[in-house]
Amino acid sequence: MTFPATAGADHDLGHSAVQRARELVEPVLRDRVDRLGPSLGGIGRYHFGWRSDGTGATGKGIRPALAVLAAEAVGGTARDAVPAAVAVELVHNFSLIHDDIIDNDDLRRGRPAVWKEHGVPAAILVGDALHTEAFGALLGSGHPNASAAALRLATAMREVVVGQVDDIGFTTRPWTGEQAVRIAEYQSMAEAKTGALLAFAAAGGALLGGADAAVADCFDRLGRHLGLAFQCTDDVLGIWGDPARTGKPVFGDLREGKRTLPVIAALTAGVPASERLGALFERGVRSDFELRLAADLVEEAGGREFAEGEAARHLAEVDSCLASLAMPAETRAAFDSLAQSLIGRSR
Amino acid sequence: MTFPATAGADHDLGHSAVQRARELVEPVLRDRVDRLGPSLGGIGRYHFGWRSDGTGATGKGIRPALAVLAAEAVGGTARDAVPAAVAVELVHNFSLIHDDIIDNDDLRRGRPAVWKEHGVPAAILVGDALHTEAFGALLGSGHPNASAAALRLATAMREVVVGQVDDIGFTTRPWTGEQAVRIAEYQSMAEAKTGALLAFAAAGGALLGGADAAVADCFDRLGRHLGLAFQCTDDVLGIWGDPARTGKPVFGDLREGKRTLPVIAALTAGVPASERLGALFERGVRSDFELRLAADLVEEAGGREFAEGEAARHLAEVDSCLASLAMPAETRAAFDSLAQSLIGRSR
Repeated sequence: MTFPATAGADHDLGHSAVQRARELVEPVLRDRVDRLGPSLGGIGRYHFGWRSDGTGATGKGIRPALAVLAAEAVGGTARDAVPAAVAVELVHNFSLIHDDIIDNDDLRRGRPAVWKEHGVPAAILVGDALHTEAFGALLGSGHPNASAAALRLATAMREVVVGQVDDIGFTTRPWTGEQAVRIAEYQSMAEAKTGALLAFAAAGGALLGGADAAVADCFDRLGRHLGLAFQCTDDVLGIWGDPARTGKPVFGDLREGKRTLPVIAALTAGVPASERLGALFERGVRSDFELRLAADLVEEAGGREFAEGEAARHLAEVDSCLASLAMPAETRAAFDSLAQSLIGRSR
Repeated sequence: MTFPATAGADHDLGHSAVQRARELVEPVLRDRVDRLGPSLGGIGRYHFGWRSDGTGATGKGIRPALAVLAAEAVGGTARDAVPAAVAVELVHNFSLIHDDIIDNDDLRRGRPAVWKEHGVPAAILVGDALHTEAFGALLGSGHPNASAAALRLATAMREVVVGQVDDIGFTTRPWTGEQAVRIAEYQSMAEAKTGALLAFAAAGGALLGGADAAVADCFDRLGRHLGLAFQCTDDVLGIWGDPARTGKPVFGDLREGKRTLPVIAALTAGVPASERLGALFERGVRSDFELRLAADLVEEAGGREFAEGEAARHLAEVDSCLASLAMPAETRAAFDSLAQSLIGRSR
């Protein structure tokens, strides 16, 4: 995966895949949400930002675009991928709604989160409804590969939930010593929490485009590596990203005590800065001075370099997956561009 | 459906269907819960009451038994029905775990509810995991009708969630006037909340037993009417049931201000007792004297008789569904007996 300095054309290809997916997916998605009836459907429409006046922010739409491109890569059409694209948007949003309750996050896409606006019971129930609707969207399509895709969705959602549980569990672990979070544990968690759903988007789209299981597995790997590349990059941005571009507070992840890859890599590097960082976290990082010191120690211990290296390694794996699949040059370029808009976001 | 005074033999048949289903289902169910990993799997095992010492109360197992009997009724084996029986147990328990958060219920099966023991985040996540595992259990079976069954499961779960939302919404409505809950609304809610999952158990079991869609539809109707008969009976027991046998406080549903069928029927009967009852509820029913007065007014206005009549009508529909299907006499007797143990429970 290369990020050319003049990425205008590639970027437009990715944008166009997102745009094409959105135009195909949104009417079907709206229909699914409408099936939840006036009360729950209204809460669903609130979450998706579909207001009667046409305003409101929706998600980036990377996942449905990935499903559409995967279908096209294997010789199918964008329309073939729609049930998988709709399903992945439904489960992604179900996860967001439940995660906002769990993480006590008040805001989502610049608006009050569902639980904040409509209460926890409504947020639990609308999440459950979107979850089940995802299986309905796939299985109701009547596509001969819908059942195989739905089984992959069930497996992916198990991973997502288990990954979320592991991520929460990390926050209660000590910073140093035998019980501290190890790099391999972080990688499993990130693959499950972030990679599995991108893997489903790609493999599900490929299956509905007519791929067999072996080709779908290749798209699954592509999605996983894309998810891991994204997570590694997001972890770097969570410490050193420009708040004006990321929309997150400076040193945000350090302030929240998140066990992200740069931090775990720095703590386990076995260099003097590792020990100083561990001692600092154990005392508690509160002031802006301490936050900056922690960020500097993570960098000094090689945590930033390690995470950036991992992001590059996963992107190379994405490249290698794409190279192993014969596909039209335009589709290939659109994949590169989509990856760029996912990884390069906020930079 | 008849309830013979000497129901010993029939009761044993139903018991044996429950027992057979439990023996087939439990190992598969345990395997599904184990797939959630040590942390989430442990919470799942807590909910199901599977303790290392072998103690703990599990559910009644009516739904898996219904799936098994439906498969046998159409010429399949009990083993054929297992993926549907496992799926229905998984989603039923997912609903219980989430409902206990929503309803703020501290106890489930005599133990602290999952959210009370492990916290709301863990309870949300383990519910989500069981939900997705249900689709995995069905679709992973490789049964040629698994996809059709899973689509019915998705539709049923939408109904369950919408029914739950409607039931919650009823509690905020006025007792009398234009905005009061109508009998037809109650019936839709009860069919969705209680009937849809029993409908899936029966239709899913039939499909895996080899039935076509038309026969599965007949089992779907059977399950719906069984669910409605159960709900009407449960509503009567919720006011007039013997606390020693129901395990619920006397006049429990009246105390909680639940919009149950006897109450709605009494309020909308248009007799003098209806008006007195409406005025009493609007003022608020608090003391034991007022609770007894409310129960008497519900009965005087014909609410109890109406609900009992509805239960009988739905049981007659169950009978008519069963009569329309050719099946071994023993299976038919086991269905009657299962219905009896569902409807006749706590009496």
